[in-house]
This record gives sequence, structure tokens and C-alpha cells, in this order.
Amino acid sequence: MFEQLGVIGCGLMGGSFALALKERGLVRRVVGYSKSPSTTALARELGVIDDTADSALSAMSGSDIVLMAVPVAATEATFKAIKPLVDPQVLLMDVGSTKRDVVDAARRVLRERVGAFVPAHPIAGKESAGVQHADAQLYHRCQVILTPLPQTEPELLKKARDVWTAVGASVVSMAPEQHDAAFAAVSHLPHLLAYAYYNAVSQQPNGAEFLALAGPGFRDFTRIAASDPTVWRDIFSANREELLKQSQRFRHALEAFELALKTGNLPATEALIRSAAEGRSQWHIHNPGSRR
Amino acid sequence: MFEQLGVIGCGLMGGSFALALKERGLVRRVVGYSKSPSTTALARELGVIDDTADSALSAMSGSDIVLMAVPVAATEATFKAIKPLVDPQVLLMDVGSTKRDVVDAARRVLRERVGAFVPAHPIAGKESAGVQHADAQLYHRCQVILTPLPQTEPELLKKARDVWTAVGASVVSMAPEQHDAAFAAVSHLPHLLAYAYYNAVSQQPNGAEFLALAGPGFRDFTRIAASDPTVWRDIFSANREELLKQSQRFRHALEAFELALKTGNLPATEALIRSAAEGRSQWHIHNPGSRR
Repeated sequence: MFEQLGVIGCGLMGGSFALALKERGLVRRVVGYSKSPSTTALARELGVIDDTADSALSAMSGSDIVLMAVPVAATEATFKAIKPLVDPQVLLMDVGSTKRDVVDAARRVLRERVGAFVPAHPIAGKESAGVQHADAQLYHRCQVILTPLPQTEPELLKKARDVWTAVGASVVSMAPEQHDAAFAAVSHLPHLLAYAYYNAVSQQPNGAEFLALAGPGFRDFTRIAASDPTVWRDIFSANREELLKQSQRFRHALEAFELALKTGNLPATEALIRSAAEGRSQWHIHNPGSRR
Repeated sequence: MFEQLGVIGCGLMGGSFALALKERGLVRRVVGYSKSPSTTALARELGVIDDTADSALSAMSGSDIVLMAVPVAATEATFKAIKPLVDPQVLLMDVGSTKRDVVDAARRVLRERVGAFVPAHPIAGKESAGVQHADAQLYHRCQVILTPLPQTEPELLKKARDVWTAVGASVVSMAPEQHDAAFAAVSHLPHLLAYAYYNAVSQQPNGAEFLALAGPGFRDFTRIAASDPTVWRDIFSANREELLKQSQRFRHALEAFELALKTGNLPATEALIRSAAEGRSQWHIHNPGSRR
């Protein structure tokens, strides 16, 4: 049980965390800060937060748990703003989709206090952003990756595991580098491919006519191509080395298909397809009970 | 109203067409043939067909409407088998996902009778194949592409439009070449990319660990990578020229992203993402009332 949650960045992720803790009686009071006062006002109106703070630092004040849910590009500035109140008595976490850059910023800014920060990445989200879509169940049955540093306080790490578990998530720990390599492969690359594919189709001479014929397979394949441009610009940029490595692996896999097609090699084409189809048929999303 | 529907290939597509016509009272009797006698028996047991035929030719006999719903690779052999009964009094259609190869086979085999064949491609399907998944609503709100030849009997073309409209589909006509170019872009290429992507991820050293972390975006992006290997081997092979052209366009679009990332050009990265994201946000599947 926490006394006060400070939410820095009252969007979908921060707002959902606040609602999840409130719904389960895990916190007495929630104080929120957002860069835009109208967002903070809306969060309060919706009952997501109980009180508004006029700065990131004042959202820290009096809080024993703080969630930084700001765009990745704003992480370093946020660390600078809150540094005076960073303390091993307060569980401070983020929700960023990349972790090496966040950890680097934490080391640079927080220095000897870096052990009070527990880097976190909940694998959850919705197509629709904003506090108006905040949902107490967003983290239920999702995975949360924690990427602790050697200096991370063991007690804070335990508290972090406990609070995510309490809201229904399953918690995995790994090194920041390992996290970024994995998510380059299973999340950032699919976004890159979906964006590139949509551009390739829409920008050809008959693109508009073609798009009018597209069906359910296209719809699902391109759903992530509607994801927020500034968020994904920053993720791509923060993780570009791993992303470019994965993109190269992908191009090799595509070239294997192209070669089989160009040479009319039906058994090779089928073997490549079969390898993917059998793997994908057996794959299940980690979340128990969710759609495949 | 038709007297007798002959279904050649009692799978998901053929079975759903039979159920759709029956449900709407558009046919008195359905006769079905499948290569595997157990499939035909199951179709009869399920009430999808009323009688079994022991050959494709005998499914034609006495029918005034015939749907060939066989794998694309079996199209030419099927035309040969049924040729003696191909007649402008009978509406003969297929459901193939590629059309140039089907039309070529029809020209080669049916020769002067080719005008009795109306090539059709209903943009419908399910992940689960087989007559046990046949569904009277499968074609409701889907698009059906007809690719008539200059010789196609106008009256048969009209009947084809009418019957697909009657089962709830909307009908579009175009040349076979135009069809294959469009579907290379909006259907065949996404399948190719999804298969290649799944192989690239799963075949790397930490692939299995990475896949265990994948979330909802990955799930939707790779759903089509579970599609049937022999069906898609044949589609890729039948349409490989257009598919390879589209794959090249895609590689150019991907290279534009890679260049922006390698040079750390954030505005260019964002512009590429924004172009796709804005397009995809405005795109709607043709089917009215369905999910985006």
C-alpha cells in the first residue's frame, strides 16, 4: 500500500497506472503533472488523479511511488527536473519503450542516486492515446520488463515487481541492452516494415485504387502503421543500431524468398513459407487468455 | 433462382457459397465433388451439399451454376475434366486469388467455349480452412472481383454479378492483369513480408526468447504468416512477376527509412512515418460496417 502516487505525464500509460492502483486500493492519493495544463485538468475531471501538481518536481513531493510516463525524448529533462527529490525511499519508474537511452540518461543526470530508479517497460498500449482512454485493466495480463542496474536498490526492485504483479502483470527482468535487442526484433522492426510497406503501396501510380481493394489481411498487417509519428520517430532514433541490425536480417530473409521466386524454385518457396507458417501457428502471445 | 449448384472443391470457399445460396433460397439443390471422398462425405453430413458427385464432370451434370473452388494449381486439370459439359447455359465461376493464370488456363483448355467461364475472386476467407468452417455469411459485405474476357457471355456476366450481389457482396470488374497487379500490392506482398519477417526473427540466435516477449502489435502484424503454405506457394508462383515488382518497391521504401536512420535525420524519419500513419489512419476497409 502506497500513500501517494505521483504521475508525471498524465496520458494513456500514466493514467491507466493511476486507475489500476486506485481500483485495487493500492494507493491513497494520486497527484498528477502534465506539460499541458488542460491534460492535467482533464485527468482530474475524469477522476484519474486527485490533485494537480504544477511541476514534475512537485508531483514527486510527498509521493512514495512515482511513474514517469513522458515521451522518451523528454526523459532526460524530466530526470533533471525531479533530481532534488529522487530518494531510495521513493519507488521511481518509467514506462519507456527503449531502455538503454533511458538508463544512460538516468546515469548521467541522477549520478549517485541512480539506484533509486527502476527502469520499466510495460508491454501494453492502445491505438488511441490520451488520458480519456486510460483504463484500469490496461496492464492486466500484460508483461512488464524491468531492466535494473547493478546499483538499483534491491528493495525498490522488489516493490516494483510487487506493484506490477498486483495490477495483474507478469514481470520479467533483463539487462537494458538485452531489452533493446529483443524489442528491435519483435516490436520496432514490425513498425518500421508496416510504415515502409504502407508508403510503398500508397505512393505508386495506382496506389489509391489498390488500397480500395484491400481486405482483412491488409487491415491487420498495417494496423501498427497508424501509430503515433513522434513517439515512433523517437523509438526508432533511440534504438537505431539494433533496429538497423534487425532490418538487415529481415532483408536477408526477404532476399531468400525473392531468389526462390526468381528461379521458379517451388520447393524452396514452399519450405520458406512452411518454416514461417509452422512457427507462427504455434506461437502464442504471452498473456494468458488473450487472442492469438 | 438456380435449379442446381455444382460445387467442385467442397472447402471453406465452396461450402460457404453453397450455404449462402441455400440460406437465401437461391438454389433448389447442391451437388458437390471433392478430390477426397471424406471431404465430400463431411460436406453432405453437415448439410452443405445435398448430394455427392464422384467426379468434377458429374458435379457439372444437370447444374445451371457451378463454382470451382479448387487450389489454383488444380485449375487447369479441373477445366480439362469438366470441358465436355462447359456450356453458355451454365454459369461457371472460380474463386482463385490470382486471375491471369486462371484465365490463361481457361483459354488453353476451353478454347472456343471460354466465353462460358466467368473468372471471380471473392475477397473473403478465414484463418481456418475446411468445410467444417463453411459459413453462409462469409461473402456478406465482402468485395468480389470479376475479371471477364472479351469473349465472356454478357448474360453470364450479369448472372454472376447478380448472384454475388444476392449473397451480400459488392462486385467490381477489372482486367485480369489489373487484378493481379493490385493484389500483388495489397495481399500477396503483405503475406511475403510477414513470412520473411517471421523467419528473420525466429531464425536468429535469441529468436525464441525474443518471440516470448512479443505483444499485440506483433500478433496482428504476423497473423497472415500462419496462412496455408501450399496455397501461398501457388499464389506467389502464379503472380511472381507482379509480386517481385512490388517487393522491389517495398525495398526502396525501406531503404529510404534506413538512410534517414543511418544519417540520424530525425525530420526525414518523422516525415516518412507521418506519411504512412496519416494514410493508414484515413484508410477504411471497403466492407461497410466492419472493423478498421
